[in-house]
Amino acid sequence: MSSTRPNAFYAQSGGVTAVINASAAGVIETARQNPDRIGTVYAGKNGIIGALTEELIDTSQESAQTIAALRSTPAGAFGSCRYKLKSLEQNRREYERLIGVFKAHGIGYFFYNGGGDSADTCFKVSQLSQSLGYPLQAIHVPKTIDNDLPLTDCCPGFGSVAKYVAVSVLEASLDVRSMAATSTKVFVMEVMGRHAGWIAAAGGLVAQQDIPVVILFPEIAFDKDKFLARVDALVKQHGYCSVVVSEGCHHPDGTFLAEQGMRDAFGHAQLGGAAPVVAQVVKEGLGYKFHWAVADYLQRAARHIVSATDVQQAYALGRRAVELALEGKNAVMPTIERISNEPYEWRIGSAPLEKVANVEKTMPRGFISGDGFGITDACRSYLLPLIEGEDYPAYRGGLPVYATLRSQLIPRKLAPFELA
Amino acid sequence: MSSTRPNAFYAQSGGVTAVINASAAGVIETARQNPDRIGTVYAGKNGIIGALTEELIDTSQESAQTIAALRSTPAGAFGSCRYKLKSLEQNRREYERLIGVFKAHGIGYFFYNGGGDSADTCFKVSQLSQSLGYPLQAIHVPKTIDNDLPLTDCCPGFGSVAKYVAVSVLEASLDVRSMAATSTKVFVMEVMGRHAGWIAAAGGLVAQQDIPVVILFPEIAFDKDKFLARVDALVKQHGYCSVVVSEGCHHPDGTFLAEQGMRDAFGHAQLGGAAPVVAQVVKEGLGYKFHWAVADYLQRAARHIVSATDVQQAYALGRRAVELALEGKNAVMPTIERISNEPYEWRIGSAPLEKVANVEKTMPRGFISGDGFGITDACRSYLLPLIEGEDYPAYRGGLPVYATLRSQLIPRKLAPFELA
Repeated sequence: MSSTRPNAFYAQSGGVTAVINASAAGVIETARQNPDRIGTVYAGKNGIIGALTEELIDTSQESAQTIAALRSTPAGAFGSCRYKLKSLEQNRREYERLIGVFKAHGIGYFFYNGGGDSADTCFKVSQLSQSLGYPLQAIHVPKTIDNDLPLTDCCPGFGSVAKYVAVSVLEASLDVRSMAATSTKVFVMEVMGRHAGWIAAAGGLVAQQDIPVVILFPEIAFDKDKFLARVDALVKQHGYCSVVVSEGCHHPDGTFLAEQGMRDAFGHAQLGGAAPVVAQVVKEGLGYKFHWAVADYLQRAARHIVSATDVQQAYALGRRAVELALEGKNAVMPTIERISNEPYEWRIGSAPLEKVANVEKTMPRGFISGDGFGITDACRSYLLPLIEGEDYPAYRGGLPVYATLRSQLIPRKLAPFELA
Repeated sequence: MSSTRPNAFYAQSGGVTAVINASAAGVIETARQNPDRIGTVYAGKNGIIGALTEELIDTSQESAQTIAALRSTPAGAFGSCRYKLKSLEQNRREYERLIGVFKAHGIGYFFYNGGGDSADTCFKVSQLSQSLGYPLQAIHVPKTIDNDLPLTDCCPGFGSVAKYVAVSVLEASLDVRSMAATSTKVFVMEVMGRHAGWIAAAGGLVAQQDIPVVILFPEIAFDKDKFLARVDALVKQHGYCSVVVSEGCHHPDGTFLAEQGMRDAFGHAQLGGAAPVVAQVVKEGLGYKFHWAVADYLQRAARHIVSATDVQQAYALGRRAVELALEGKNAVMPTIERISNEPYEWRIGSAPLEKVANVEKTMPRGFISGDGFGITDACRSYLLPLIEGEDYPAYRGGLPVYATLRSQLIPRKLAPFELA
């Protein structure tokens, strides 16, 4: 590293996705293409925690082939974490540590790859160059399967989950349809999405293929009687019905159908189990034989059935983040701007982080059908391009070949640091 | 139809799979290639029930392209059912009705595509030509994701579920590994398999990729303390651990972990929910943060990630069933015979139905590791060829294109029949 070529720090944050490593590949490959401007890209082991503990993975030790293979490798190749920095006033010690580590390793660029909470952290870090007097540019690379970041048309990770959900609901519905005459009549599938129903909405795409489906969105309070009436009508008409329930589906009083009483590091309720609750409601209310599935991590890890559009956008946003840094920007996030639906065209824009942090974009009411159980044509037009295209990993011996990193840490220069 | 060319009846039975329609394509295409010997193939609407109710789908109304497309369409294209014929003594009425329908429509071949219960039904039907004096050849086409039929090396449907499970466990494990430092440490995935652990065993294939995984087989009674000790050791060593639990996993007293108190038409317990039970055991015993998934129908409907080997074998068995009929055979089932593991070579054999019906092939103890929580090299060598190869469906607009049949019923000739 030379003093005229700052090094870069890259970290993955929050829940991982099937395409977050494609963004990592975009960051690292673009940095490598600018050796006169950027030194080494160090990746935080387990996200921002790696910066605090001075556990920095030297990505220059990874071959070009390995970095390229990240494009088709799911989950967080460098490790991610759920760890939210408090405000500078509340935890000055951590920010000073960050600056200490960055200074010790000549880091001038901070690329943070995450969702809403991470955008907030990234924004705080972007302000450090002023408040703590260390020159640093912080760029946020958007990522969240929840698709709930503002100012971007969509979020990398979402399109692939949407494709997984639509394909899975289609396939399981064909299964149920095959046997409904004598067996299961109602199939319930639980999907992720705590506050925003984007993922559940993807299940609605199968309605075009004449599959009867009821969506339970977190945006719409659960109305048991209305729900049972809708399911009953569909079963009477089609012989069966599929239900896609968001983990964030809640009763009118705000309690989740799936509440388990646990909370994660960000204080979010730990959910899981809305599907069996809904299945039980169907059984008790209508007596139909049911089956239920909970996709959980399978949906966001499913690199084997990603959307090609999603992979391309994840990579492009990683690439653009580096370009923005080289253009001297700070406190920004590259975004997806939709130009048209048919044909689908998009370009990369950018948004000030200040306006991104802590804003949650839920489904517009106009995307949810009048009865609250389906999606509108506008929603369909929005979703379809995002699940377009297949991008299969290579296989060996029947299993996908995913990148294996050396993940070599650079030698520590500072004293150990205790996490709060 | 001419009197010298008997028609054929084909029906799908029991739980459907991602490749049962490939067997249907094998039957129908092979019959079409022998127009001098076989008239029309009629498919039972919703399986054997369609024969009893005289709801016969005229497959000659389907184009060659549609029949070919069945090869890449999941679930039961003609409908399936869970309906077990009792013995001739117990329910002579139903057998006489079957013969009545077959006689009315010139049916001389009976192809029954199912698992163990269906093999039993097929065997009973094969004996009718003697006992009720109607000339009929009954051939069973094996199909079951449970892989529990005897006398065949494997069963169509299984290889694809095994691939789905192995790929899903691999992907979800990478997800957990990414975040284990601050988040979920134990991931539990429930898979099908009531009495045989073949499907759960497929989860063990990821151990080769350095993924710590614990398998809970139905063949091994659940030992809570031993299980917790194993999970704890793996978490301490790797930082995380995945658990694959069979729906048939049971306590030493024989009660299922997932018992819901419901039973299906065959008297089998209706299961679901072993994963949350196991997750709870982990939480209470070790305190680790957990997540759980229940794949349910997704695993057996997942045409998007089938094994190419499985598709080929499903098709070949359908084809061979017709050839066996043309060779004058009755009461037989074409089987898969394994010639070698490396390279994997197989051929089609056949077995007398008498020896297939009502025999359940569970995992050999030599396929389960000494501690009961993993698979042996012998099991790995058995499983790997079965998940080999990818066979993707076509996609349009981001979703798979699955065959849509006309499913035209032929006119009824008989009086209505009331099912028992």
